[in-house]
Amino acid sequence: MKQRVLVTGTVGFLGKNVAEFLERNGLDVLPFDQKTGQDLLEEKDLEKALSKVDFVCHLAAVGDVYLAAENPKEAAIAGVAGTANLAKTSQKYKIKKIIYASTWEVYGEPKYQPIDEKHPANPDHPYSISKYAGELMLKSKLFNVPWTILRLGTSYGPYMRKNAVIPAFINLAKAGKTIKIQGTGKQTRAFINANDVANAFYLAIKSNVKNEIFNITGTELVSILDLAKLITQYHPTKIEFTEARTADVPSSLLTSEKAKKMLTWEAKIPFKKGLEELLKL
Amino acid sequence: MKQRVLVTGTVGFLGKNVAEFLERNGLDVLPFDQKTGQDLLEEKDLEKALSKVDFVCHLAAVGDVYLAAENPKEAAIAGVAGTANLAKTSQKYKIKKIIYASTWEVYGEPKYQPIDEKHPANPDHPYSISKYAGELMLKSKLFNVPWTILRLGTSYGPYMRKNAVIPAFINLAKAGKTIKIQGTGKQTRAFINANDVANAFYLAIKSNVKNEIFNITGTELVSILDLAKLITQYHPTKIEFTEARTADVPSSLLTSEKAKKMLTWEAKIPFKKGLEELLKL
Repeated sequence: MKQRVLVTGTVGFLGKNVAEFLERNGLDVLPFDQKTGQDLLEEKDLEKALSKVDFVCHLAAVGDVYLAAENPKEAAIAGVAGTANLAKTSQKYKIKKIIYASTWEVYGEPKYQPIDEKHPANPDHPYSISKYAGELMLKSKLFNVPWTILRLGTSYGPYMRKNAVIPAFINLAKAGKTIKIQGTGKQTRAFINANDVANAFYLAIKSNVKNEIFNITGTELVSILDLAKLITQYHPTKIEFTEARTADVPSSLLTSEKAKKMLTWEAKIPFKKGLEELLKL
Repeated sequence: MKQRVLVTGTVGFLGKNVAEFLERNGLDVLPFDQKTGQDLLEEKDLEKALSKVDFVCHLAAVGDVYLAAENPKEAAIAGVAGTANLAKTSQKYKIKKIIYASTWEVYGEPKYQPIDEKHPANPDHPYSISKYAGELMLKSKLFNVPWTILRLGTSYGPYMRKNAVIPAFINLAKAGKTIKIQGTGKQTRAFINANDVANAFYLAIKSNVKNEIFNITGTELVSILDLAKLITQYHPTKIEFTEARTADVPSSLLTSEKAKKMLTWEAKIPFKKGLEELLKL
């Protein structure tokens, strides 16, 4: 019998990528999203969904950091209250494992680099605070449901939100408009392809490993300026610099060695190749 | 002009004690509580309240740990979403300082004792996770509102919830019923009198100190068995032992030296004296 997996946040960028990847790889996916009328805060909805599955991939959240900053209470309701309710109800339905989409941003200001999973968490933004509090709820001994926490790097791929940096730059360049970089453009991101991220969820389901935290990040550090330059190679346009954005997350180097060892996971798609595929869409 | 202070959670045990203490000491208190129709998640309610005050003492929460365990989503909504919304709106109204009621339980399993404010936070219960995430929201650079975090010990005093250990034992003893102790009764608490707690809020308002975390705990460790014995000295009754409660917080010794140095705060009311006053009510 096929393994049955509930994927939350399936209308969102990463949720959609994960759901499609799991289906392509032979799993039976049950989608769950507020935008299709299912609410993590409603016991009825949760019970109906959880009664049908073995695993949960939990990606529902206010995934847009700008929106989370504007509306922190919604970030907390979706991320913390929703995850707590999911953990509590999953215990009742004997879910085998919840795989939770957290973020590298929970580490905050780096104390050492590359950052491994033992680095203290010190989130400073409503987005990452909500993700971190969701981790803590999931780990609570009170709920006693097996979990895997994936601290994801900055992901890119099909279905991205249009205000995320990569699609924003691509759209400007395609329209022949100036790309505006906030700050110096030297802040780097270890961009990770959504397909690689989805593979981490898949491997976490297949693996017997439980109650572990994994960094799932890219290996290449790409600066925002590099990104802009790369895109303008395909669609030539001007690049300009504007004021730095408030409370921007610092550049940090992370290591995903633990995921390699324990989940046999690796980032496989080079950034340039992933970006080219995105430019074709 | 009197300093004007918004106190949230004024229908609850500690909120009521803090509000009364501040009024007795010459401050102008504006009460705020969901039970009197004011909601931290409603901008309208918050804006109306915040436009009238200089300081906020934020005690609103699901304060009952049993209730928080049963209904973790409500704990997260009240504690995390409510605090985030308060921090965001306080910035707009240029609030001078938010004094936040956190808990000693955020430390989790002690790594060393006595626990000072540098001890890592590792909360494991929906109650303490929500309190800790509330701290993080309040501290976020994004909101940029001055704060003082008070990590309170297990408080007792007038207006306590009837299911808290002290009033529960007192009521049983007064009724001549058997006091049932969960576990061995050797688990200790550094009980702190609500009047001492309220004084910490008062001193935090009066002090210029900002953006600091303080332990506010009692100095005497009282075991649950000692508590039961003390009460039965006044109202003789039987003591029995029952099964330990799930996910009970471990006994820990904390130090409030920092609050003594920086806020000139000290626990002044010996436990026996505070208990005697409670027995008279």
